[in-house]
Order: sequence, then structure tokens, then C-alpha cells
Amino acid sequence: MTIRLDRERFVATMKEQAEIGATDGGGLHRLTLSDDDKEIRDWFAVQMEEEGLDIRIDEFGNMFGRREGTDPDAKPVLVGSHLDSQPYGGIYDGALGVIGALELIRTLNDEDVETTHPVEIVNWTNEEGSRFQPAMQGSGVWAGAHSLEEEYAKTDADGKVFEEELDRIGYRGDVPAEPQEAYEAYLELHVEQGPYLEENGKEVGVVTGIVGFTWGAVTFYGEADHSGPTPMHYRKDALVAAADVITQIRRIPSTLGERTVGTTGYVDVKPNSINIIPDEVTFTWGFRDPSDDVIEEAYQRVLQEAEWAAEREGIDWEWEERMRAPAVEFADQCVDAVQSAADALELDSMRIFSGAGHDATHMHSVCDTGMVFAPSENGKSHNESEYTSWDDCYAAASTLANAAVTLAGGDAQ
Amino acid sequence: MTIRLDRERFVATMKEQAEIGATDGGGLHRLTLSDDDKEIRDWFAVQMEEEGLDIRIDEFGNMFGRREGTDPDAKPVLVGSHLDSQPYGGIYDGALGVIGALELIRTLNDEDVETTHPVEIVNWTNEEGSRFQPAMQGSGVWAGAHSLEEEYAKTDADGKVFEEELDRIGYRGDVPAEPQEAYEAYLELHVEQGPYLEENGKEVGVVTGIVGFTWGAVTFYGEADHSGPTPMHYRKDALVAAADVITQIRRIPSTLGERTVGTTGYVDVKPNSINIIPDEVTFTWGFRDPSDDVIEEAYQRVLQEAEWAAEREGIDWEWEERMRAPAVEFADQCVDAVQSAADALELDSMRIFSGAGHDATHMHSVCDTGMVFAPSENGKSHNESEYTSWDDCYAAASTLANAAVTLAGGDAQ
Repeated sequence: MTIRLDRERFVATMKEQAEIGATDGGGLHRLTLSDDDKEIRDWFAVQMEEEGLDIRIDEFGNMFGRREGTDPDAKPVLVGSHLDSQPYGGIYDGALGVIGALELIRTLNDEDVETTHPVEIVNWTNEEGSRFQPAMQGSGVWAGAHSLEEEYAKTDADGKVFEEELDRIGYRGDVPAEPQEAYEAYLELHVEQGPYLEENGKEVGVVTGIVGFTWGAVTFYGEADHSGPTPMHYRKDALVAAADVITQIRRIPSTLGERTVGTTGYVDVKPNSINIIPDEVTFTWGFRDPSDDVIEEAYQRVLQEAEWAAEREGIDWEWEERMRAPAVEFADQCVDAVQSAADALELDSMRIFSGAGHDATHMHSVCDTGMVFAPSENGKSHNESEYTSWDDCYAAASTLANAAVTLAGGDAQ
Repeated sequence: MTIRLDRERFVATMKEQAEIGATDGGGLHRLTLSDDDKEIRDWFAVQMEEEGLDIRIDEFGNMFGRREGTDPDAKPVLVGSHLDSQPYGGIYDGALGVIGALELIRTLNDEDVETTHPVEIVNWTNEEGSRFQPAMQGSGVWAGAHSLEEEYAKTDADGKVFEEELDRIGYRGDVPAEPQEAYEAYLELHVEQGPYLEENGKEVGVVTGIVGFTWGAVTFYGEADHSGPTPMHYRKDALVAAADVITQIRRIPSTLGERTVGTTGYVDVKPNSINIIPDEVTFTWGFRDPSDDVIEEAYQRVLQEAEWAAEREGIDWEWEERMRAPAVEFADQCVDAVQSAADALELDSMRIFSGAGHDATHMHSVCDTGMVFAPSENGKSHNESEYTSWDDCYAAASTLANAAVTLAGGDAQ
């Protein structure tokens, strides 16, 4: 069978969610565990109640809504994403996947579709990782990648503690933050956040996996001297060494792989005064690639560049790898379900690797996992100008819904 | 005549001043217009009163103490420096010059030396420029380089207004912040803040001038994209462009002059998140050289490098020159007086250009000006490890005092 979502209701719901935490620039500023996060969670709970779902909030604030299947022994199919946003981020990232899941439930209810497997929808806590690190925190705890107690203790830039903020907004539930049973599959719809679908003129992406990555930081320790009377050959300039490596991080990907990317997003300079040679500079690296070997090579290369830069300035340095995620390859049954759904809807699709991490990264260790991508205009995301047309949002949500129905064994199966 | 300062009292006074605003690390944190600045000012006023000086506080907080000469028509000789410090700076920078001036007065009084010219000593407000910009603010206002009203309106990082802070510590005087008469000469003792005296094994520096400099900032405007799914060839990375120019600022001096230095001390990265490509990066440049032509060449070179870097990333940029000071050559009568004093004291001296700006920079436009340098161990300054031995401090203060007596026409002249 092919189900048809109500386009008008779907678009109206997308717009409705975008009002909570809306920015003047047309984006979203809905940081995890903020007042706006509480408000969108309350709103989402009401939507789930209205559909008669059985709601569970776990200890980490992850929100689930369950619609039973016809076979009491069939494992549930989980569908969802996240409702939190980047600081001044876009209205599609994450939210599209949760609203797509909600519309799936509404349509199953409207059309009295029965499924063999239960269908659950989910809003994961703190996918963005901008207020509390790491990203994909809620799904990571739930999948067992992180310890609940360690993540509870995380603090934001103001020193506020995750656990206290979760209590404050009233979303520490009593269900353990872990799978209560085996799952059949996890499906997630997300905006691509890259340019490949648009570049290739495709309406929807059948995601086959997620690139791996290494994140880390290098700190150089130079000497803080007066910028005037200190001759060049006396200087031990931590910033020059950092700048040296940052330019190499731009270059390293071009020597590794077609899909390799490398970025420095964060720099901290001390004492950061126009008239003093910097004596302590920390900067981050991030490399991503579909191949774990390339990730390891990029990691070794950035350390080598840092060592050379430190030698050139005659200074000390240290580094820490902050996160390493292996590349993920999605399960055939999920990729096939997404491809079949796109084909049945006569959408122009392509297979694509995800360049960003998603909650699906962690879910991959729990059950068969797949993803659907909607095109991102100019590949933009994580800022207010992020844009996906309603046509493309609707096409991707329809693909998600039909793939989920396939996996859950909908009426006609 | 040669006057001899009281070494024990001089050292004790240096130690006494260093207690106000002392840091655990053995340095000074005595920011301009802070409570500690008020305390050192109160202490300095008491010292001047005890010597019977005629004290004036001007509208900008500059503190003067006057000892009359024998000739009512003779122009005063002004001697001094500043008592404010860098954040966690050293105990010698500035303070040595003011205590040297105070010891000069004490010795003239002790030994009943009469001078033809009046002798004035001075503590300039905000030489450091770390809390309120620019540096050398008090002498700059007094010499007419800055407008009083504009400098009153400056704010610190907490938004506190200079004028209100000056009132708060009770140091807005009623004397206009400008010369009340013509001056014969200005002399300033300072630590070198560079390595040349130590490298050459000299006890004291006869300063012949001050390097010129250009200070400015470049801002690159790129695009903030997700660091994962944005391919390298889609990126417009403001930080890579900045890093490119920062490495060139290390290199440019080596193509210009023997004494040229170039520094980036300050960088601001937005949004400064490990997972987002930076879209706005501002960094500063600073170049110094004894030649104004070299300064101009360095300025043109950094703008050229910024243009090339912006083109490479395909991004916009802008710049502002924040300050330009021409190189200063000191007056013969002052340089000669310092050299004669060093020779009379049988000190091993050398002629030297100052690599840093000083209040003497502004005084050069008011009257004949000269400076004395004491050696800085390892050329260090502007941090707690700044060090000059008491022997070297005493030798330099003695040189200052005798040069001042020469210029002021002491008894034996």
C-alpha cells in the first residue's frame, strides 16, 4: 500500500512548531533544556496525546509515543529525530524528522491502517550538542554509548548542570534511558545539510550510511611578550603555530579522499590583546570521511602538522582527541524500504552518504537503521538561512512514512 | 656635579610600591582607575607631599609635583612615567620611572641642591591601554594628541565609562589637562622590554628614539555552514583566510628591516563552535620599525595579503587602521645629557632605539625629550616574570637623576 500524508496539515504543523523559539531572522533558537525546549516538548506531548499514543518520557528526557501493532510478538519500528536547534539555527533541521513521524501516525489513524509491528515516534534530547556536549547526547545515552550519570553532570557555558536543567523543565521521566525491548528498525528523516541532492537535481535522498569523524583540539604554549620590543627571533608565538596548522587543515582533505572534509571551528587565544604575543592558543580540528582509514590518516596528519608547527616556533604543545565515530553503513532492509517508498511515490531519488552525524549513528548499534534526506538549498544548515521547499519537505516526509509502513507491515503487506 | 641616590631607600621604595596590586605570582595587577590605582595614587601623593612638592592633579588624572628652581623665567624639566600596570604585569614597567623621579626629588632635597629650572615629576594616567584604549592615553590628552571629551567617553570591557571611573577614584582634578607653560625637557626612565641591553652586556641604555608603528584589524566575512556535509569546494571559511594572513604577518618583517616586528595579538572567531565553519573572523596586526617608510610598506603588505586570502576563499573583507605613530627621534640635548650622566657614573652604556611606545612618544611634540632604559632579563615584560636586577634599576635611576640635574641646571652647572 502507499499512504498519502495530508500536505496542508503537514505544512501547517511545520509552521506551528517553528513558532516556538522563532528568531527575528526567520530561524529557530531552541536550545536543549531551555524554556523554549520545554514549550515545544509540551506541544509535542499534546500532539501525541491527541493521536492516542502511549507516551513515555525516559530519565534523560527522550520522548516516545507508541501506537500498537497487531502482532504482540512483533518488534516496534521507531521513527523520529530531534526538536532542539542550533543557536540561531534553521526551522527544518531535526524538526522535519519529528513532524514527519507525527504525520505518519496521524495518517495511520485517519486511514485506520493497522500495522503488524508497533510504531513508535521519538524526540531525542539534545541532538545539537551546542549547549551541552556531546551532540546526539540523548540517543547516545539510550543506545548505551554514554553513561547516564556522566551526561547528567555536563555543564553549559554558564555552569548550569544538565540534570538540574532537565528537572527544571520537568522532563526527567521515570522510564530507564535504554531500550525496553528489541527494535525492528529505526528510521530518521533529516535535511541533507549539504549540496549533493540539489546539485544533482534530486527530490529525495536514500541514505546508505554516515561518514565517520575525528574531533579534537591542539593547544600550543608559547611565551607572552610585548609585541614591540621583542625581536622576531626571540618570539615563541602560539598563534602563529596555530595559524600554520589551521591553513593545513584546509589543505589535508585534498590529499586524502573525494568526500573528506576538514574544519577548524573554534579558536581560543590568550591573552588576546593587540599588544601581547599570544602564549596559549587552543583550536579544534574536525575531519569526516566515509572511510575509517582516511579518518585515521587525517588524525595522524593533523598531529604531524602540529608537531612541525611547534618545532618551527620552538614551543610546547599537547592535543586531545575529543570524539571519534566510525563510519556507519545502514542495513539493507532499511535502505531498500526507503528506496521502494521513493520509487512508489515516483520521486527522483539518489543514494547518498550523510556528511553529518545524526541520532541514527547511535541507533545503528541498537537495530537496523535507515535515513531519508530532503534537499538543502545551497547546502546550508545550522543557520537561519537554512531552507528546504515545502514540496521537498513533503516528498521526504511521504518517503519516510511509506518506508516506515513497509517495515512495520502495514495493511497491504 | 654628580648626585648619588640612596640605594637602600630607592630599593625599599620600589618594593613598597610593588605591594599595592601585588599578585600571587610576584607581579602587579594595577589596572588604570581601579581601586589599586587609587591606592597607589594616594600613596604617591603622600610621598610628594612629604618632599614639599606643589601637587597638581589635572582633569584627566595626570599627577604632577613641582620643585621650584632659582630662575623664575626658566622652563621646567619634567621627569616621570606611569604607575598603572598590565593585567598580571611586572613590578618595574612604568613604576621604575616614577620611583626614579621621586628619588631624584628626595636626593635634591636631602643634599640641598638648587636647580636653575623647576623640576616636575609626573605619573601619567593609563599608559598601558589594557583596560581603556588607547595606550599612553593621559600623556596623549595632555600633549593634545587626543580630545579630552573623546577619551572621557571610552568604556572598558564591562561597559564602565572612563570619566565615571576617574570620578569614582577621586582623581578628576581641576587643572586643565594640557601644558600650563613651555617645558624645557621631558625625561623618562623605563625598562627596555627587549633583549638588546642584556644581549650586549650593557648596564644602561641611552635611548635615541622610538620606533613607529601601525596597528589595525582585518575582518573576513565567510559563510557559516555545518562542518560535516559542506564539501570543501563549497566553503567560504573566514578563519582559513585569517590564518593565512597571520602566518604572513610572521614572515613580512623578514623581508623589510633588521628591526621590523609584526604581530597578531587578538583574534575573534564567530560563531566559534567546533562544528560550524566560521563566518566572521577579526584579527589585529601590529608592525613596528624605526623607519616610517618600512611601517607604510608593512601596512600595504598586510592589506595585500588579506586581499589575496579573501580571493582564495571567495569571501568579503574589510580593514581599519586603528593607530599609526611615526618614528620619534629624541632631541640632542636630552640624548647628550643621558649619555653624559651614564659616562659620569662610569656605567657601561649603549645607544638604543625603543621598540615600544612610551609617554615620551607624545611628549616629543611638547618639548625636547629623552629616555633612559634599564635592561630587561630575557627581554621579558608585560607579565609577572618581568625582571630587572636592583643593581640595574639603581644604575638607570642614577642616570636619569643626573641627566635631569644637568638639564635643570643643578648647583655645579
